[in-house]
Amino acid sequence: MAQKGDLLSFRPDIKVLDATIRDGGLVNDFYFSDEFIKALYKVNVKAGVDYMEFGYRADKDMFDVDKFGKWKFCDDDDIRAIVGDNDTDLKISIMADVGRCNYKQDIHPKDESPVDLVRVATYVNTMPAAIDMIEDAHRKGYETTCNIMAISNAKESDILGALDMLGKSPVDGIYIVDSYGSLFPEQIRNISEQYLEIGEKYGKYIGMHAHNNQQLAFANTIEALTNGVSYLDATMKGMGRGAGNCAMELLLGFLKNPKYQLFPVLQFVEKYMVPLEEQGAIWGYDIPYMITGHLNQHPRTAIAATKEQRKDYSSFYMEVVDKD
Amino acid sequence: MAQKGDLLSFRPDIKVLDATIRDGGLVNDFYFSDEFIKALYKVNVKAGVDYMEFGYRADKDMFDVDKFGKWKFCDDDDIRAIVGDNDTDLKISIMADVGRCNYKQDIHPKDESPVDLVRVATYVNTMPAAIDMIEDAHRKGYETTCNIMAISNAKESDILGALDMLGKSPVDGIYIVDSYGSLFPEQIRNISEQYLEIGEKYGKYIGMHAHNNQQLAFANTIEALTNGVSYLDATMKGMGRGAGNCAMELLLGFLKNPKYQLFPVLQFVEKYMVPLEEQGAIWGYDIPYMITGHLNQHPRTAIAATKEQRKDYSSFYMEVVDKD
Repeated sequence: MAQKGDLLSFRPDIKVLDATIRDGGLVNDFYFSDEFIKALYKVNVKAGVDYMEFGYRADKDMFDVDKFGKWKFCDDDDIRAIVGDNDTDLKISIMADVGRCNYKQDIHPKDESPVDLVRVATYVNTMPAAIDMIEDAHRKGYETTCNIMAISNAKESDILGALDMLGKSPVDGIYIVDSYGSLFPEQIRNISEQYLEIGEKYGKYIGMHAHNNQQLAFANTIEALTNGVSYLDATMKGMGRGAGNCAMELLLGFLKNPKYQLFPVLQFVEKYMVPLEEQGAIWGYDIPYMITGHLNQHPRTAIAATKEQRKDYSSFYMEVVDKD
Repeated sequence: MAQKGDLLSFRPDIKVLDATIRDGGLVNDFYFSDEFIKALYKVNVKAGVDYMEFGYRADKDMFDVDKFGKWKFCDDDDIRAIVGDNDTDLKISIMADVGRCNYKQDIHPKDESPVDLVRVATYVNTMPAAIDMIEDAHRKGYETTCNIMAISNAKESDILGALDMLGKSPVDGIYIVDSYGSLFPEQIRNISEQYLEIGEKYGKYIGMHAHNNQQLAFANTIEALTNGVSYLDATMKGMGRGAGNCAMELLLGFLKNPKYQLFPVLQFVEKYMVPLEEQGAIWGYDIPYMITGHLNQHPRTAIAATKEQRKDYSSFYMEVVDKD
């Protein structure tokens, strides 16, 4: 696939989505202060970010509201308390997980909601449920994406089948998701090609959501971008589950569209992200995440090891290599 | 340029060079214990690493031997005290800086030395001096490389001129060096192509030495490799000046040649690298390095900021953006 764009110009189809609350919320159970969320909203507007994801729309019958901050549930009213009528160019997104969202009830018609984009997260084997959610959100007036998770463990033929189902659905965009942070840039190149082919055939845009287990979140994001992928997820200081995500400061340092501003992001990182770390939130590249990424495994064992501040990397390796 | 190799097989031309002492020595002024160096030598042999760089051969008339550990000077006798006759497959390298090495006197004939490879480090504007050093080392019987530093600030035409001079010299290999950690994979792709063209024309191999300012050291190393570059520098836990280098554990996790062993590297990292960090040695990705990388500047301001544990990233940005 030929390179799209170059290092001097910019592609107007590029959109940046800030997933700090949603993926970062997996680090601190979504306990962010209102001040933090308001400041994040303001900095995203100022930095020219295109979308800000406020969290999951999780089912309150399944998850105890007393055990999580409100952004796991992301009520329209809670979003509105931050953004008012959102009279800005920044669009608002939420994520809805297959099997963990009572979407028929909890996702309201778009004209009653501050939300613009509903991102449906699914595994390859739950595509029919994902499509039902996409159709529901589409009917209610939302832009929609489908984020197919854990593709590093799925067969290409199954992924192709899922992409074809999505092509025929009303979904607007399809995301490449490297859930385990196990993919290398040359794999991202091939996967991008596969997704973009379907995207061009059916008129869907393609997005990228990366994890930093092998210090490749930023590299894989710009590799996808170079191949034609246009929606790019990033988080402030890379905050996200385990090894975290593509760092917003790295991504905005790379993008050439003059609407994107790095400086306010640095101000936000210094004022809000550094204190979060100092208060004990733990994320970012570390050897246990490298090991689960290398082994193409879910990072849960590495998250536990990091929380326990384990440095016995070789014993950890022996434990997890025996898991399969 | 077509991709060389794939993710399932391995290329026998790939060589891994451990630069932990040499680039990591810039972090701790080369004060490593003998136990550390002996263990590093053993783990490199066990892990199948091809070359181990013991340090610089710096001029003792220019640098005070009381202010640096011995690996800044890397006497043949000091190397021999570690490796004996080096009856292994691991080759030994040293680095000699243009203008900072009394090579005619301090680099002895190869048959009197445990060293196999002399790597000459130069800027583009000191190529004649570098070539004189290369010719001297070649005459004395060594394998030689030339590592052209700071190429992100040099003109392509000057680099091309330097490559042509090297092509006509007796040098064995030429290294791409991203001194400021400012280059992106698509630039590495183009630079690799330029270097490989000269390499193929004159029969020289090409190497890659990356820095991690933008979390791209590993990504740029495997990008270069994918394009045909064959000598790859890495360091244990990425130890190196400022943001550090490509981490050995990431690189060996990627390479498919069964001679490379990740596990002993994890053991070494846990037993020797973690204590170094706990004792106060500071290296690795941090926002100030990202800023100097982004601005294509020498990392010295970022190193100072990191030592002072500065977190006022936006003020730091304003200070360094005004420097030019």
